Amino acid sequence: MGTFLFLKGTEVSRSIKETMIKNIAALNSSGISPSMAIVRVGEKGSDLSYERSIIKSCESVGVFAKLIVLPEAAEQNDLEEIISELNQDKSIHGILVFMPLPEGFDNARIRKMISPEKDIDGMTDSSIAAVFSGVGFGFAPCTAQAVVEILKFYNFELSGARVCILGRSLVVGRPLSMLLLKENATVTICHSKTLNSDKIARESDILIVATGKMKSVGKDFFADGQVIVDVGIHFDSDGKMCGDVDISAAEDVTAAITPVPGGVGSVTTAVLISHVVNAAMQKM
Amino acid sequence: MGTFLFLKGTEVSRSIKETMIKNIAALNSSGISPSMAIVRVGEKGSDLSYERSIIKSCESVGVFAKLIVLPEAAEQNDLEEIISELNQDKSIHGILVFMPLPEGFDNARIRKMISPEKDIDGMTDSSIAAVFSGVGFGFAPCTAQAVVEILKFYNFELSGARVCILGRSLVVGRPLSMLLLKENATVTICHSKTLNSDKIARESDILIVATGKMKSVGKDFFADGQVIVDVGIHFDSDGKMCGDVDISAAEDVTAAITPVPGGVGSVTTAVLISHVVNAAMQKM
Repeated sequence: MGTFLFLKGTEVSRSIKETMIKNIAALNSSGISPSMAIVRVGEKGSDLSYERSIIKSCESVGVFAKLIVLPEAAEQNDLEEIISELNQDKSIHGILVFMPLPEGFDNARIRKMISPEKDIDGMTDSSIAAVFSGVGFGFAPCTAQAVVEILKFYNFELSGARVCILGRSLVVGRPLSMLLLKENATVTICHSKTLNSDKIARESDILIVATGKMKSVGKDFFADGQVIVDVGIHFDSDGKMCGDVDISAAEDVTAAITPVPGGVGSVTTAVLISHVVNAAMQKM
Repeated sequence: MGTFLFLKGTEVSRSIKETMIKNIAALNSSGISPSMAIVRVGEKGSDLSYERSIIKSCESVGVFAKLIVLPEAAEQNDLEEIISELNQDKSIHGILVFMPLPEGFDNARIRKMISPEKDIDGMTDSSIAAVFSGVGFGFAPCTAQAVVEILKFYNFELSGARVCILGRSLVVGRPLSMLLLKENATVTICHSKTLNSDKIARESDILIVATGKMKSVGKDFFADGQVIVDVGIHFDSDGKMCGDVDISAAEDVTAAITPVPGGVGSVTTAVLISHVVNAAMQKM
């Protein structure tokens, strides 16, 4: 293995939490208790583990989390009724619905239903338009924003930097390209149909790996002095958590990289809760 | 000057019009007369010339164009009332408001007011979200789509192609990056803060020039065999129309390029009117 400087997500989330705690104190003294609703349908493992992490983080800073669970056999109507009530509930500042929903649910309809000002995970048209245009109110998808928070916390120059994003998903690659464009980075988006994505990756100052495929990106994609952000979360055959990046064979590479676990994932939760706090602050 | 194959916009708009004429016939026989409203505030020269081109094209295919003109001294309220009436008017299928509006108007408010299904120039959150995600109903900004129409008409392979877009505007660069991503191109967005944009441009198979600056991109940005699309429309000191591209000194370059005039601009109007027809077809 080469010489890798690990960019710890815990440092970044600690800094986000420090800011949050000050804001929560201000909210509390105005009589506002920042609160979110977590809506889960079914019992998917990844939903459950994200949910645990959210609830733990909420408790640690003093944000109230209301958990609403529907059985997988629930109907679209049941879910819509719940969203509609949460939209109207003035004590709830942010709504998170775990997506994708189980088979048979209309994800798009639910996404569009969430009140834009409570859309803490950037799912509505209004949030998408704000991220796309870089103006107006609207939260970015938390994982995409987490990547930017990490790069900023560690003071990497983004203006003029060449950034290669591997992956064009709606929750990471695409919104991230817009967030980085706002920071004046020069962004290339690669995907499964890209030819020579390894070469394009090597030419970048900052490489964002969001292929969604375990250990799919290795030595051929890396360059000395590069900053690598690994967005993936997987479990290998030994049950060990790992990312989209495989650094095991990158012997001669010197780079800074986010570890998995302890990288992007740990920042994503902090970003989500900061959105709840920010949404509540709009009511001050 | 090098050897340039000119990609004529008139060929592309003719093909778009042929499809449109068939669709209009079908609409007419269903008793629907596809109609658009053009809303102009003030007398800006570029608005007037686009307006003339729209009205002429509408007449040539049989789309009804209703022109509404407000004086520059009009109030935001006056304009909002008009948009609101047009939103409700069932005989109008598409609404175009010339942007930016004169000083003192709230562009964002007007943009958000337009009924999404009548938003033929892709200005609303709903249209932006559709372009961004590549799913759902919503029109793209006409100039961005015109670029894609030209590339498709001339059968350039987009899947896997390296595309460099010079310019990150909300009406061209950004939406175009999403439209080309949908076609499986590998897209790099460059802008004023990009370092070595000439080098990045030369590495691309397709170069889209949307800097908004007259003759700002020349030989250093070109590579042999490249396809170059010039989005700019300017008038030089002799009053001659020209683009963002300067090919005068590109002696040893062989490339295909859209001319100005007769390139992207001539396709933009056809795309706009095809949106009116498509919007009307949603009512069939």
